[in-house]
Amino acid sequence: MGATVPDALALRIRSSFDSQGLMRHLGARIDAIRPGTVVLHLPFRPELTQQMGYFHAGGTSALADSAGGYAAMTLFDPTDDVLTTEFKLNLLNPARGERLEATGRVVKSGRTLSICQLDVHALRDGARHHVATGLQTLMRVRMRGPTP
Amino acid sequence: MGATVPDALALRIRSSFDSQGLMRHLGARIDAIRPGTVVLHLPFRPELTQQMGYFHAGGTSALADSAGGYAAMTLFDPTDDVLTTEFKLNLLNPARGERLEATGRVVKSGRTLSICQLDVHALRDGARHHVATGLQTLMRVRMRGPTP
Amino acid sequence: MGATVPDALALRIRSSFDSQGLMRHLGARIDAIRPGTVVLHLPFRPELTQQMGYFHAGGTSALADSAGGYAAMTLFDPTDDVLTTEFKLNLLNPARGERLEATGRVVKSGRTLSICQLDVHALRDGARHHVATGLQTLMRVRMRGPTP
Amino acid sequence: MGATVPDALALRIRSSFDSQGLMRHLGARIDAIRPGTVVLHLPFRPELTQQMGYFHAGGTSALADSAGGYAAMTLFDPTDDVLTTEFKLNLLNPARGERLEATGRVVKSGRTLSICQLDVHALRDGARHHVATGLQTLMRVRMRGPTP
Repeated sequence: MGATVPDALALRIRSSFDSQGLMRHLGARIDAIRPGTVVLHLPFRPELTQQMGYFHAGGTSALADSAGGYAAMTLFDPTDDVLTTEFKLNLLNPARGERLEATGRVVKSGRTLSICQLDVHALRDGARHHVATGLQTLMRVRMRGPTP
Repeated sequence: MGATVPDALALRIRSSFDSQGLMRHLGARIDAIRPGTVVLHLPFRPELTQQMGYFHAGGTSALADSAGGYAAMTLFDPTDDVLTTEFKLNLLNPARGERLEATGRVVKSGRTLSICQLDVHALRDGARHHVATGLQTLMRVRMRGPTP
Repeated sequence: MGATVPDALALRIRSSFDSQGLMRHLGARIDAIRPGTVVLHLPFRPELTQQMGYFHAGGTSALADSAGGYAAMTLFDPTDDVLTTEFKLNLLNPARGERLEATGRVVKSGRTLSICQLDVHALRDGARHHVATGLQTLMRVRMRGPTP
Repeated sequence: MGATVPDALALRIRSSFDSQGLMRHLGARIDAIRPGTVVLHLPFRPELTQQMGYFHAGGTSALADSAGGYAAMTLFDPTDDVLTTEFKLNLLNPARGERLEATGRVVKSGRTLSICQLDVHALRDGARHHVATGLQTLMRVRMRGPTP
């Protein structure tokens, strides 16, 4: 799909992402912003591990949650914000590798609720391994200006 | 309940927790280790925020996931390890406050799988606010030594 | 808790339950309607089994879903209706017994969304066995009359 | 994919499905059995409705749960059986139509656990509407014969 997100909206998403202290603290970056899809990645660091030295499920889910939230926002008005209502993540394989890549894809964009599919891959020795898949429900938060 | 976890097992849990790079990087601490229950907390820092300045759902879920994992371990043999199979978290209220407190409670401890209930509260101005509730499935990983 | 649901609302819930073809087809009944809690039960019948002769997870989840939906309604205006947004159920033990009992409890009743905890027990030889626990997100549907 | 499931295994799945009292009671049928995928359908009947006259989420989830369980079995040895550990379903749109069609697809087939994606469509006036999407964790149950 060659479809693109309007500049104002893409800018708003990047600016929101930059304001997330946690994404910066973990070292996450935006890979792609397309209508209904956002891809983030997270390079490996010892600061992200669980007790066996792999990526901690908490980091995996933080990245997946943000990817889904911004995917939902790509289909919103630029003035709307988003809050995660709930999400569920299945951890399929040990999250080992040089980086994680999380993709959020909108399955349904409703007036109030959006549903996203979340997938996380680990890049290891040049191959992509599916480490997590999930579903997320998000709520649109309308940021209204003062009513006249 | 005045029941306690055997010293060797409590030590093993603390040592596993200390080896989780992510828990240290976020600033999480252990509050309590009891049979079937573990409580962790996470003091607020700007490094843990989402775009509105509250705790990021990713931090909330990282803390909840670890609390549940160690709760499951309190009922294991000291040589067993644990992996999260899946979890689901409902974010009930904005995670605002001076600290988050995550409690993992074992609902069922099976031979292969354990199920935990996860609850996260935010401490704000002296009151506890329920910010998330969830369910988690964990798998016991048997660490066998060499068989004679 | 001796608190009771207003008569008009209890009547509305019973009437809605009676209009659910599936609950009648399965043979489910209402046990209790209290503010924030609804208990349903389902007597065993061969028509409700899976391949091993236990209650099918589908029947367990149908009962749990209805219990949660009506629990949410106990805190609504009598004119509001409810739709399940999502639910997640962990099946803890084989659902064997003379009857299933599902309890829906409201964890949070928001303006738009309600969150319920779902628990299902099997009654077998005089004992209650916890067979499933879950979480459910529901949406309030406002049934407005014609605006003047 | 033209791949097929071995006859003995397909027969075992059909026989297991036929032994599920609930699937027969609801009126569900098998549409397709392929390696890693099973499709079931459920014609509309007033016995399957919720209070608004649509398919009840409980019927939707019963069908989805069985589709996923049998999808997992397509990749098992014919002597293994399967139990649902947990599942989560997002209800995307009202389940209105002449029939529901549920597809279970194996995302990961592990030694102990299988993970399936569940999707349910309603067929209405010649069009397919996506009414539910979910994730399911299943456990392989090894049916061993007597050891010599």
